[in-house]
Amino acid sequence: MVNFELTREYIDRLQELISAKDENTITSLLTDLHPADIAEIYEELSIEEAKFLYFLMDDDKAADVLTELEEDDRKRFLESLPSEIIAKRFIDNMDSDDAADIIGEMDDERQQEILSHIDDVNTAGDIADLLNYDENSAGGLMAKELIKVKENWNIPTCLRSMRRQAEEVDEIYYVYVVDNDGILKGTLSLKKMLLSPVDSIVKDIYNADVKSVKEDVEAEEVSYIMDKYDLVALPVIDSVGRLVGRITIDDVVDVIREEAEKDYQLASGLTNDIEASDNVIRHTRARIPWLLIGLVGGILGSRVIGGFEGIIDEHPQLAFFMGLIAAMGGNVGMQSSAIVVQSLASGNLGLDSTVGKLLKEVLIALLNATILSILIFAYNKIAGADLALTSTVTAAMFSVVVFASLFGTFVPLLLNRLKIDPAVATGPFVTTLNDIIGMFIYLTIGSFFFSLLV
Amino acid sequence: MVNFELTREYIDRLQELISAKDENTITSLLTDLHPADIAEIYEELSIEEAKFLYFLMDDDKAADVLTELEEDDRKRFLESLPSEIIAKRFIDNMDSDDAADIIGEMDDERQQEILSHIDDVNTAGDIADLLNYDENSAGGLMAKELIKVKENWNIPTCLRSMRRQAEEVDEIYYVYVVDNDGILKGTLSLKKMLLSPVDSIVKDIYNADVKSVKEDVEAEEVSYIMDKYDLVALPVIDSVGRLVGRITIDDVVDVIREEAEKDYQLASGLTNDIEASDNVIRHTRARIPWLLIGLVGGILGSRVIGGFEGIIDEHPQLAFFMGLIAAMGGNVGMQSSAIVVQSLASGNLGLDSTVGKLLKEVLIALLNATILSILIFAYNKIAGADLALTSTVTAAMFSVVVFASLFGTFVPLLLNRLKIDPAVATGPFVTTLNDIIGMFIYLTIGSFFFSLLV
Repeated sequence: MVNFELTREYIDRLQELISAKDENTITSLLTDLHPADIAEIYEELSIEEAKFLYFLMDDDKAADVLTELEEDDRKRFLESLPSEIIAKRFIDNMDSDDAADIIGEMDDERQQEILSHIDDVNTAGDIADLLNYDENSAGGLMAKELIKVKENWNIPTCLRSMRRQAEEVDEIYYVYVVDNDGILKGTLSLKKMLLSPVDSIVKDIYNADVKSVKEDVEAEEVSYIMDKYDLVALPVIDSVGRLVGRITIDDVVDVIREEAEKDYQLASGLTNDIEASDNVIRHTRARIPWLLIGLVGGILGSRVIGGFEGIIDEHPQLAFFMGLIAAMGGNVGMQSSAIVVQSLASGNLGLDSTVGKLLKEVLIALLNATILSILIFAYNKIAGADLALTSTVTAAMFSVVVFASLFGTFVPLLLNRLKIDPAVATGPFVTTLNDIIGMFIYLTIGSFFFSLLV
Repeated sequence: MVNFELTREYIDRLQELISAKDENTITSLLTDLHPADIAEIYEELSIEEAKFLYFLMDDDKAADVLTELEEDDRKRFLESLPSEIIAKRFIDNMDSDDAADIIGEMDDERQQEILSHIDDVNTAGDIADLLNYDENSAGGLMAKELIKVKENWNIPTCLRSMRRQAEEVDEIYYVYVVDNDGILKGTLSLKKMLLSPVDSIVKDIYNADVKSVKEDVEAEEVSYIMDKYDLVALPVIDSVGRLVGRITIDDVVDVIREEAEKDYQLASGLTNDIEASDNVIRHTRARIPWLLIGLVGGILGSRVIGGFEGIIDEHPQLAFFMGLIAAMGGNVGMQSSAIVVQSLASGNLGLDSTVGKLLKEVLIALLNATILSILIFAYNKIAGADLALTSTVTAAMFSVVVFASLFGTFVPLLLNRLKIDPAVATGPFVTTLNDIIGMFIYLTIGSFFFSLLV
């Protein structure tokens, strides 16, 4: 059933069945459901109810569900279980990469305890290896399970060996070809195997032009490569070129989406991954930091304005357009930053140098600034504002738009060079900064024109 | 070579080789490169230079490069070629989905012309079929090429038939199982084939629990399903359940990234897909619309302030905090909207009703509002502001934060129900609206306290 729709009714019914301990009905319900759906259901249940469900599922499914859970739900659930159960019921039935991710969420002591309960030494060893990698590196994304053949084998030998290996692997996307030292040589597509005569040797039919990454390559780079070259799986090699694992696209899809979402969250002033279903405290924790920045910024802004108290006392009409100019600075700056951030993320920055980019941005800024200044000038004329105010607003609009676009282009490029996530530049921080500077420019120009023309 | 890095030097060298018509060197250069890399290079070349490269590539590679090009570069390039070349050199060597996408970019007349030049009637027919689908539907994403076996076949029969079919297909992810009427029954994993005895019948070993979508399902829904269930390929069925095509993950990765990027662009005030490498005019076109909205909003804001001219004349210090309060309204509203937008996108809205969400948002808002009001109150006390101003700023901060979060939560939910992209709510439009309303609340409260306390 593709379109499983989680409803309040469904949960209520399930909870009744659970409290009635109606194991048969529940078991048949669960067998129809995909682990991802069960994970959604789980998030609506109490620990006790969830446990009851878990022990009605076979080990493979229970393990899959655990992998699909949100991190904090999973933590809560696992804390309530003894290490041995976790090891034997869940970890033993997972791909090494999922197992490592989940164990990696626990403290070292618990990690050791669980690993010690895993019967198969190789599995435990694989997981231990993976735990050593940074989770945002190729090594952290890869799974140890893969299918490889030696370059000097013929197809029947390959098939025999693949049968053995296949028991370990969920899905076969590529068959990897290695030499006797385990050095990655290339891939053997199943298509090629189907189309080649049975007696052909791997050496003569494999595809040597294979993309691969070293263990320590960053997750973002991995996703960029798999996305650009439309790869479903990407082999990972060690420093001497030996095949150590493979990264599958489903793990990378998460990286790609999370990257894009992270930028969006920073742009909209949210600190960490937050969902509508999270509780009030988490929501506040995710929002208040940026609001505090905004508050401090606003207070600084008020000081700036305070510094011009005299001129505002004399010409209160100056206050009318403060908000407009400040907001414009914020909007323009955010646009410029967003474009840089996105180009950096997609690796699509073109070949222009930083100076080249700034020069181009100057042109765009001048164009926008001209259009906007003309419009605001026209408005002031029509509204019959006095010459001083009109000149101030027009000149301020022009300078603020130009300044903000350059500032907005430069900051993310700078952050990027400083190895800070450039997306921060599209967040309230720089926007607030632009507000303040815009305000300052406006009032400075204002005091000039009003002292000149009044 | 994974890390092909496009450099200015590389392009210069290539352009020299092209003007020197050094075909051999260029050909050997090109054979080392992945089509996606060649596409990047192409974007730096003139049409003439690009054409020269194209005719040095074999048909398959040329077709792949064309698929990898940015849409507008591809258009420019194809316009300079006769329909027959396009049909025979490119379209004939593409998967039906890529072919349909590319032909779909042209006007009907050109489409017919090209289709008429395709030798294989089936291919032409497949493409014509695909052209009928909305490009944002499952039908628009799918390719006709797939490998299917009948449920009553045995493994040797499957292998024989798969050999024939494999010539059409680039990569084999799943083998689909259909009955004699072509109705999709399930999938047969290659793993299963490897592990089962040769004489077993498909019926007894295939996996009947297969996800599929109807032709008219929206692309967003497709990507949600493939992402949630970690699918590499998703079969597409017609209204009676017959297998008509398959969607592969690489096409969906693009949908996922574009969706996320679209939200980010809307949030940062960019209208259409824009990249740093685009020209000045395109940049201005992408930015000016939101800036105009901001301008109009700012002007309205100035009218609002103008409406309170009297009170500002008397108490210019009111002007100090206008910016702060307005900005706070904008920030808070954007945060609330962003959370709703993201939950809607990830289909992760939880089970709370709209009312439930608003109630929860009230709690969060009250919490944030209290914190921020206390802080701004403390600041005013320390800064020694008079009682009227202190009360105004504190009360305004509280009301604006509460109002903006509710407004920011409600608007995207409303837009979503009206089938308008809710991400619009995080853009400058609602932010500007929040600015203005914030300003109004502030000055209303101000006139109250100042008339009361002064």
